[in-house]
Amino acid sequence: MGVIVVERKILEKNDAIASEIRHTFEEKNVFALNLLSSPGSGKTSLIEQTIKNLKNKIHTAVIVGDVQTDNDAQRIGKLDIPVVQIITNGACHLEANLVRNAFSSINDKEIDLLFIENVGNLVCPAGFDLGEKYKVVMLSVTEGDDKPLKYPAVFRNASVFIINKIDLLPYLNCNIDEIKNNALSINPHLKIFEVSCTSSEGISKWCDWLISNTKQ
Amino acid sequence: MGVIVVERKILEKNDAIASEIRHTFEEKNVFALNLLSSPGSGKTSLIEQTIKNLKNKIHTAVIVGDVQTDNDAQRIGKLDIPVVQIITNGACHLEANLVRNAFSSINDKEIDLLFIENVGNLVCPAGFDLGEKYKVVMLSVTEGDDKPLKYPAVFRNASVFIINKIDLLPYLNCNIDEIKNNALSINPHLKIFEVSCTSSEGISKWCDWLISNTKQ
Repeated sequence: MGVIVVERKILEKNDAIASEIRHTFEEKNVFALNLLSSPGSGKTSLIEQTIKNLKNKIHTAVIVGDVQTDNDAQRIGKLDIPVVQIITNGACHLEANLVRNAFSSINDKEIDLLFIENVGNLVCPAGFDLGEKYKVVMLSVTEGDDKPLKYPAVFRNASVFIINKIDLLPYLNCNIDEIKNNALSINPHLKIFEVSCTSSEGISKWCDWLISNTKQ
Repeated sequence: MGVIVVERKILEKNDAIASEIRHTFEEKNVFALNLLSSPGSGKTSLIEQTIKNLKNKIHTAVIVGDVQTDNDAQRIGKLDIPVVQIITNGACHLEANLVRNAFSSINDKEIDLLFIENVGNLVCPAGFDLGEKYKVVMLSVTEGDDKPLKYPAVFRNASVFIINKIDLLPYLNCNIDEIKNNALSINPHLKIFEVSCTSSEGISKWCDWLISNTKQ
């Protein structure tokens, strides 16, 4: 019983900070996305491809969450945009106060689009509001067609669903329609993009959607 | 501060139950493995392949943990062995009391080898002892070479590391030696197996190791 009370208090405190961040993002016209997936689905690769595609079109920044290492921030930092790494030291998800602190170190920059790359985990980050406009959930086609049914919370809370690594489809026993139908059975409002961060297939369509959502 | 105290109490209670389960497993000569990976790395496929290979050699049973659905138990149940599904209803890891309850429903069976398939999550399950002999961590080659460095706790606590989906290596920009070196830099005592649950490559070597560890 003690645990439940503590958990509710954590969530209430988190939600209050998330509202404050959301207000800041709206005031500054920052379109913020909270990117969620398992480890290795391709969050960092998607961000890299997106930044390359949107270069000279919109100003992008990234807050990267990891349990350990700053590998992802180093990868993204090579693209010459504002990047902040959050290392959670074992914690399984980002919370709003971490994002608030991270954003305070880049909020003097011109930012149209902000990616918050969450910790690689399809379970725990789903319940934490980070002040984002939308949660974006990502799967790769190698992970199994039934994953939306097995991890429903993140699909229920997301607005956008990105299916990555479609270049590997010829080598897999994967039914992409089943992945989509499973996801839509959890959340019929999901906007779905199919991409390959290796071949760049589908990336321009995704970037068009991003451009249409940023205020320039 | 309150949260830390509660967390310590949960872990102490969990460890006490895990010790009790470990004692039961030892008494009954059950070789128990706690199988950990991200969603979609191939835990259920590995168990399916293993059971097919070990049929008529050793008696295997499976406890399957999932956030939602009993898809995995249904898949494994087709192989005509004792299977118990634990649905955590959103919780991100298995705890020892769940395993104790699950095992009580099959402990009248003859069991040499028990797989405890944890919730698909490379972060949270790492800290919870379930009474197993060994933790077995699994990655697929599609997940990125740096994952052991990014999720060190699970590699530190595991004794065995299985690298799955090696049939996909020709289609990926993956350096399997780097995956292994990264894992061994976290934990030099890891026993490593490279397998494909699609082509069955490497499965017999893994099964030989299982046989050598079960008491018949």
